[in-house]
Amino acid sequence: MPEPPAKLWHGRLRAKTSALVEEYTSSVAVDRRLWEEDLAGSAAHARMLHSIGVLSAAEQRSIAAGLRALRDEFRRGAFAFDPADEDVHSAIERRLHEVAGPAAAKLQTGRSRNDQVATDLRRWAKDACRELVLALADLQETLIGRAREHRSDPMPGYTHLQRAQVVSLAHHLLAHVEMLQRDVERLADARARCDVMPLGSGALAGSTLPLDREGVRAELGFGALSANSMDAVADRDFAVEITAACALLMVHLSRLSDELVLWSSSEFGFAVLPETHATGSSLMPQKKNPDVAELARGRSARVIGDLVALLTMLKGLPLTYNRDLQEDKAPLFDAVDTALATVRALAELMRVVAFNTAAMRAAASDPALMATDVAEYLVRRGVPFRQAHAIVGRAVADTMPEGRTLRDLSLAEWRKRSDRVDADVVALFDVQQALARRDMPGGPGPRSVTRQLARAANLVKRNRTIS
Amino acid sequence: MPEPPAKLWHGRLRAKTSALVEEYTSSVAVDRRLWEEDLAGSAAHARMLHSIGVLSAAEQRSIAAGLRALRDEFRRGAFAFDPADEDVHSAIERRLHEVAGPAAAKLQTGRSRNDQVATDLRRWAKDACRELVLALADLQETLIGRAREHRSDPMPGYTHLQRAQVVSLAHHLLAHVEMLQRDVERLADARARCDVMPLGSGALAGSTLPLDREGVRAELGFGALSANSMDAVADRDFAVEITAACALLMVHLSRLSDELVLWSSSEFGFAVLPETHATGSSLMPQKKNPDVAELARGRSARVIGDLVALLTMLKGLPLTYNRDLQEDKAPLFDAVDTALATVRALAELMRVVAFNTAAMRAAASDPALMATDVAEYLVRRGVPFRQAHAIVGRAVADTMPEGRTLRDLSLAEWRKRSDRVDADVVALFDVQQALARRDMPGGPGPRSVTRQLARAANLVKRNRTIS
Amino acid sequence: MPEPPAKLWHGRLRAKTSALVEEYTSSVAVDRRLWEEDLAGSAAHARMLHSIGVLSAAEQRSIAAGLRALRDEFRRGAFAFDPADEDVHSAIERRLHEVAGPAAAKLQTGRSRNDQVATDLRRWAKDACRELVLALADLQETLIGRAREHRSDPMPGYTHLQRAQVVSLAHHLLAHVEMLQRDVERLADARARCDVMPLGSGALAGSTLPLDREGVRAELGFGALSANSMDAVADRDFAVEITAACALLMVHLSRLSDELVLWSSSEFGFAVLPETHATGSSLMPQKKNPDVAELARGRSARVIGDLVALLTMLKGLPLTYNRDLQEDKAPLFDAVDTALATVRALAELMRVVAFNTAAMRAAASDPALMATDVAEYLVRRGVPFRQAHAIVGRAVADTMPEGRTLRDLSLAEWRKRSDRVDADVVALFDVQQALARRDMPGGPGPRSVTRQLARAANLVKRNRTIS
Amino acid sequence: MPEPPAKLWHGRLRAKTSALVEEYTSSVAVDRRLWEEDLAGSAAHARMLHSIGVLSAAEQRSIAAGLRALRDEFRRGAFAFDPADEDVHSAIERRLHEVAGPAAAKLQTGRSRNDQVATDLRRWAKDACRELVLALADLQETLIGRAREHRSDPMPGYTHLQRAQVVSLAHHLLAHVEMLQRDVERLADARARCDVMPLGSGALAGSTLPLDREGVRAELGFGALSANSMDAVADRDFAVEITAACALLMVHLSRLSDELVLWSSSEFGFAVLPETHATGSSLMPQKKNPDVAELARGRSARVIGDLVALLTMLKGLPLTYNRDLQEDKAPLFDAVDTALATVRALAELMRVVAFNTAAMRAAASDPALMATDVAEYLVRRGVPFRQAHAIVGRAVADTMPEGRTLRDLSLAEWRKRSDRVDADVVALFDVQQALARRDMPGGPGPRSVTRQLARAANLVKRNRTIS
Repeated sequence: MPEPPAKLWHGRLRAKTSALVEEYTSSVAVDRRLWEEDLAGSAAHARMLHSIGVLSAAEQRSIAAGLRALRDEFRRGAFAFDPADEDVHSAIERRLHEVAGPAAAKLQTGRSRNDQVATDLRRWAKDACRELVLALADLQETLIGRAREHRSDPMPGYTHLQRAQVVSLAHHLLAHVEMLQRDVERLADARARCDVMPLGSGALAGSTLPLDREGVRAELGFGALSANSMDAVADRDFAVEITAACALLMVHLSRLSDELVLWSSSEFGFAVLPETHATGSSLMPQKKNPDVAELARGRSARVIGDLVALLTMLKGLPLTYNRDLQEDKAPLFDAVDTALATVRALAELMRVVAFNTAAMRAAASDPALMATDVAEYLVRRGVPFRQAHAIVGRAVADTMPEGRTLRDLSLAEWRKRSDRVDADVVALFDVQQALARRDMPGGPGPRSVTRQLARAANLVKRNRTIS
Repeated sequence: MPEPPAKLWHGRLRAKTSALVEEYTSSVAVDRRLWEEDLAGSAAHARMLHSIGVLSAAEQRSIAAGLRALRDEFRRGAFAFDPADEDVHSAIERRLHEVAGPAAAKLQTGRSRNDQVATDLRRWAKDACRELVLALADLQETLIGRAREHRSDPMPGYTHLQRAQVVSLAHHLLAHVEMLQRDVERLADARARCDVMPLGSGALAGSTLPLDREGVRAELGFGALSANSMDAVADRDFAVEITAACALLMVHLSRLSDELVLWSSSEFGFAVLPETHATGSSLMPQKKNPDVAELARGRSARVIGDLVALLTMLKGLPLTYNRDLQEDKAPLFDAVDTALATVRALAELMRVVAFNTAAMRAAASDPALMATDVAEYLVRRGVPFRQAHAIVGRAVADTMPEGRTLRDLSLAEWRKRSDRVDADVVALFDVQQALARRDMPGGPGPRSVTRQLARAANLVKRNRTIS
Repeated sequence: MPEPPAKLWHGRLRAKTSALVEEYTSSVAVDRRLWEEDLAGSAAHARMLHSIGVLSAAEQRSIAAGLRALRDEFRRGAFAFDPADEDVHSAIERRLHEVAGPAAAKLQTGRSRNDQVATDLRRWAKDACRELVLALADLQETLIGRAREHRSDPMPGYTHLQRAQVVSLAHHLLAHVEMLQRDVERLADARARCDVMPLGSGALAGSTLPLDREGVRAELGFGALSANSMDAVADRDFAVEITAACALLMVHLSRLSDELVLWSSSEFGFAVLPETHATGSSLMPQKKNPDVAELARGRSARVIGDLVALLTMLKGLPLTYNRDLQEDKAPLFDAVDTALATVRALAELMRVVAFNTAAMRAAASDPALMATDVAEYLVRRGVPFRQAHAIVGRAVADTMPEGRTLRDLSLAEWRKRSDRVDADVVALFDVQQALARRDMPGGPGPRSVTRQLARAANLVKRNRTIS
Repeated sequence: MPEPPAKLWHGRLRAKTSALVEEYTSSVAVDRRLWEEDLAGSAAHARMLHSIGVLSAAEQRSIAAGLRALRDEFRRGAFAFDPADEDVHSAIERRLHEVAGPAAAKLQTGRSRNDQVATDLRRWAKDACRELVLALADLQETLIGRAREHRSDPMPGYTHLQRAQVVSLAHHLLAHVEMLQRDVERLADARARCDVMPLGSGALAGSTLPLDREGVRAELGFGALSANSMDAVADRDFAVEITAACALLMVHLSRLSDELVLWSSSEFGFAVLPETHATGSSLMPQKKNPDVAELARGRSARVIGDLVALLTMLKGLPLTYNRDLQEDKAPLFDAVDTALATVRALAELMRVVAFNTAAMRAAASDPALMATDVAEYLVRRGVPFRQAHAIVGRAVADTMPEGRTLRDLSLAEWRKRSDRVDADVVALFDVQQALARRDMPGGPGPRSVTRQLARAANLVKRNRTIS
């Protein structure tokens, strides 16, 4: 029984590989986390090889036992990598040879690392999508819960970071639930497109052996077989698509985080983080900083970088497999890890943050926020909108230097600006009524929010079932 | 009847805007192409305003007539923008006032440019997705047609740009069809998520008027209403998602183009561009260059840049609308324009390129390409694959310095390497048989290719129906 | 005398180029702005060709006259491009033939578009760097001027967007001057590396004619000759480097802009834009928005995208010229145009913005900002810093729930926390004194600011001399 | 003697930090490699604190001894991080307290982690630049050495991947030396701008203590003091600039690598990697793949991603320090590590690769490559270049269908095309003479190459002295 070669390809290249080449090309540090997918894929491949007569029953059993032994080693942290291992796949083949004996020399029959690594990575990616979706459902649920608490607590809605109109805290939080819903759907779509098994595509041209791809597919739980062997080993769309979904998700989380930073400032004062979820300063004794939100914001940049790395790596590669593709894993893993950790961190943060609804209500009571209400009041009384806008705009401009607001205008003063104004104009400045007036579909009013809450709860329930 | 103000917001800010501010903030040069969507949206909005009593029938009619007049001006290239126009939307409102008179002052009732621009851009984007899908279907069809011509023309399949195993030109071309199919599906998914109408969300908080959003939605042909007004005006996911789909599509086209460049080289000699589709050199009289393919490759970088611009712009913006969002259009338009032009250019190129199948066959007949076939032959005769790999690898290594190939080994020489080898080993080196051996699902063999062709034709048929 | 060919390379490729190829490959829309550089380069090249005997004196004169005629056409906007023109360079050669007659057929002697376009673009880029540096000097000068006005106006310095310690508005503005100074220096370095003439490198391999590169270099005002002809035509480092400098510059401007947005909010209230430099809302009558700052922030993303486009385009191209390189101009031009317009817009904005120094002073008087001062007071009295930090931190934590601040602690209360505290502790809470205490090199104190102002003025003076 | 607090800021925030917050915010895994810089900075800071009377001599000695003890722990791999450690800096302060006792509580006097981490990172970055420059000098030297070996070995120069004109292998290799030279200069410029010490800027506003910044600067070997404390803690330009230099360097290495991949193909056959520096296939016995070059190409994408991450992270952050900045280290470290490893890997690869000069010479002898020489020959005999170009182009077009080349034209046939042709035209097709004709400055001819070699050797010598 010959010793397994130092390298899988030792027959052709017999010189010892340069240490620098080994170090530069090894991917073990990155792809070792795929060990579980690799063992499962190998077990299924071995069973199939037995079914087509390449492995005897005894050989298949000894490989299966060997793979179980390796699984135990990995779980115990006892699997020992060798500096000469090119990747987790060849490390496993090497070790299986030690553990399972000669049968191991048959395992790679009809299989190349090209289709093997694509298969392992797709299985990992499918799980990653599901984990992300579930974590997102948790974050959505948290936001919905907080929205329920603050169903009709008014706050200023902002455009251009200028106070614009009255909304409710619930409505604001539900805007984020909607964004996250799109992330869930994108991840679900990406997962579906990822659910295709490349195994059986060999290096690029399938095999001359009668491999039973369909049997392996069923066992590994893939939805479909890849339709073209060259595409199967050259394709990394699934990695790009999931990373793109993570990048946009992180952009959403960055927007939420930016608001937490703003709201935690002395100037806004809308949010108070508990001491358990803030950090201090090594120099300034008074500081309480919203570091988690800042880091979430900063880390969105990192995932955008991951996406660029992936797209740029793929650009211009001729078919089929090129070693450049090894650079798919670091950005994909980083994007998923970062997104997952950030979703979870923000879910906890949103659970514990205290909202200063008094401060929000005070800010929302700024009469300037009702300027649009006054204009639309005039519209209801027959004034063309563009004139109504001008009338109110002028009133704002005129009162401001006097330190007065729209609310301070007497009926007489209003009448000088437009004879359509009546005494009921003062009611427009009640913040709660202003909110209640905005109950159209999608609006911030309490009835609209109730509808949104019901919709959101349903979405989350459905999200939890996305396999 | 007062003149319309120089700016839509002249009531509040009465000073003349600085020329530099006007120039720096104007988006007319970019968003003017949205005029058609803007006119249609305004017409629908006006009809709705009439239905809820804000516009009289006469007012609605005069607005409708005015919008038609503007449409004619745009079509004739006669619409005159003013340096003070902030964007196409305010230019149209300004001009409508001139054309339709006082009724125009009521058009913006219950509508903000925030929900208006989002609505216009989503309509444009939906059309763009459809156009891209149709152009992709054409390119797929071209590739399928060329694949049919070359169903069993062998060529070398490459990994690491090294000759690996025999495939067929058809199989190679169909790999690209598969890639493009994923692009189609991503664009279809993006289009579906884009098919949501923000109109009625106002600036960020809906309206206090009883707008009939559902009626406008039906008229404008959107699939759904946005569920949250703040999200509706702050969201640019659709632009990101379409641009991401374009970026990955361009990466695919860049891979195809890189192959065209390689294949057109003297060294490969696999493809010959007709003179109509090549360019020459201003200095070197003999040159014939594959410029279209090179530009397609280069332009993939541009679309990756567009994606970065969009994601980075959105990152960290608090809700809701911020003027930063104006920077959504240039990258989205550029991504779609570039992708569309490139798909069309490559469809034409693939239609006219001549394949040098003799050169491909000669290259595919390199006996080294059958090394895997020999190893799998040994496997079928009971040699464990790892040993079979070593035996063949060594045979390659040993014959190479002598200038011989695997095909040149006598049976006696083979027998010294493995007693499992028989006289039938020579048949392995027939390139056509090598292809025929690879007929498993997804493989390059002729029967597999026939199945792939049928599948591909069905996909294209379905793609053409994606609305 | 034969007609000039429809294409420069018509001898070899005689079929009419496909319309789609012409359209896809034409760069006239982008590179037409290089006309001035191209005419100057051609004039110099023609003079050199005369000096080595390729052109007769009459021929050189007729070319020179022709080029002047073309210059007039361009200046008058009368130069007519043809759809078949591949780029501005071939358009000029075509037109020169019409204007100057047969001599034009000799102009391209010893010159390829490869070295020609690289030369033109480098000349453009050198000018662009200079323009950017001068615009930056203006912005710096504006900031310095505003800093002088507010030399000792206190404001809160922020970390994590939390009030941290007292600084002065001048010090804050000068921080931006320092950032911009690094931008100036990067642009100057990039310009120096750009100042190398490729002309004479031909398509890639120089020429077999005795071209006088040195003479042309001196006439065109380049600092050096390119040392290797293959590098000369394949290199686009200068475009990358300038775009990278623009990207970082835009990031700086984006940071400044983000502050303007924050400071213009109701919550901060530190800055008031004049009506001439703000914009309103089409719907909300009360709005006054800092759009220029928002757009500057958004446009920083665009320039980052330009940089990605350039780097990604270049990645992996083999030597020498590949048509992908044509995609260098759009991102470089966009980066420079955007940066230049943004520098100028912000210079005007910073000139006119009104600072609400009363609001800043009030915010800076928050006693929590003096927590570090108290800790360092304790250090001066022998308390180890880490304990001092804990003592003051605890005092903050204890007083906060009572609605009190550090300033409200009586001496007795202080003494219970540390016996090192004396009555002079109250002086620590004077904001002006707090500023004055921070006069070390680089600090925000008034003397430090005076030193910084002198340094900054000197830098600007020097910047204006960078050629 | 009080215990050191669990967190540096325990006075203010007394609740135990959430485990998830600790995990999400900790940077120890990334910044632990800065331990050496941190210990050195602390030692210098302590000496300065003694010099201004904050530390007694005994205290300073005990801190110095403690820091030395920690250095030993780090060197031995014995330093134990705690899950609660936020970063390497607080881990060191915690441990120092255990080792050096009460004096440690004074070390952080007048110092914040904000200025501390910026100082540590700048010191690391300065070293990184130097290491990169030295590695680049090695790679340049290798290329120069190989160029010397192949001073007049002809090969085809390519544009558009089409054979263009004859160059020499030396000239081709020296083109890469020139590219790398610009990388060296960019890194040197970046290093100079990085050589500025932020220490003494405190959290953002310096200190109220009389810190001796100049003394610390001299001890730590920085070239200058930061001029503005707010800029000093908010600035990460140096990280961006070094990462940008690495990204462009990687693009250069990717271009070189792409050529190695091309040249190693069967089709080109210009380069042969030794077995020690190639890898095989797990499936295909015959394969020998240029994996190092492919990975180098792929990893260039990763560094472009790092640059995007940095720029995008910084974009839009208000002054001064925000926790987002923590995300500076991962991309900077990754960019430098990747660039350094790739430079070294390619230096080894270029040292051992065998060039197949016979194949190069055969390819360069393709008579089409002399088409320009013939055109310039006609120019020297008075034919205007554009006509000469057309004559030769037509000759190429006419002979090609007949399977003939320019060299196969008889004098009579030439004469029919132009009466300026003489019998000496045949000499143009000698490849060595073609090379010798190109000896102008920057050209590929042997004398030009000799000049380039001398220049390059001088550059490398100078590069080695860049500190």
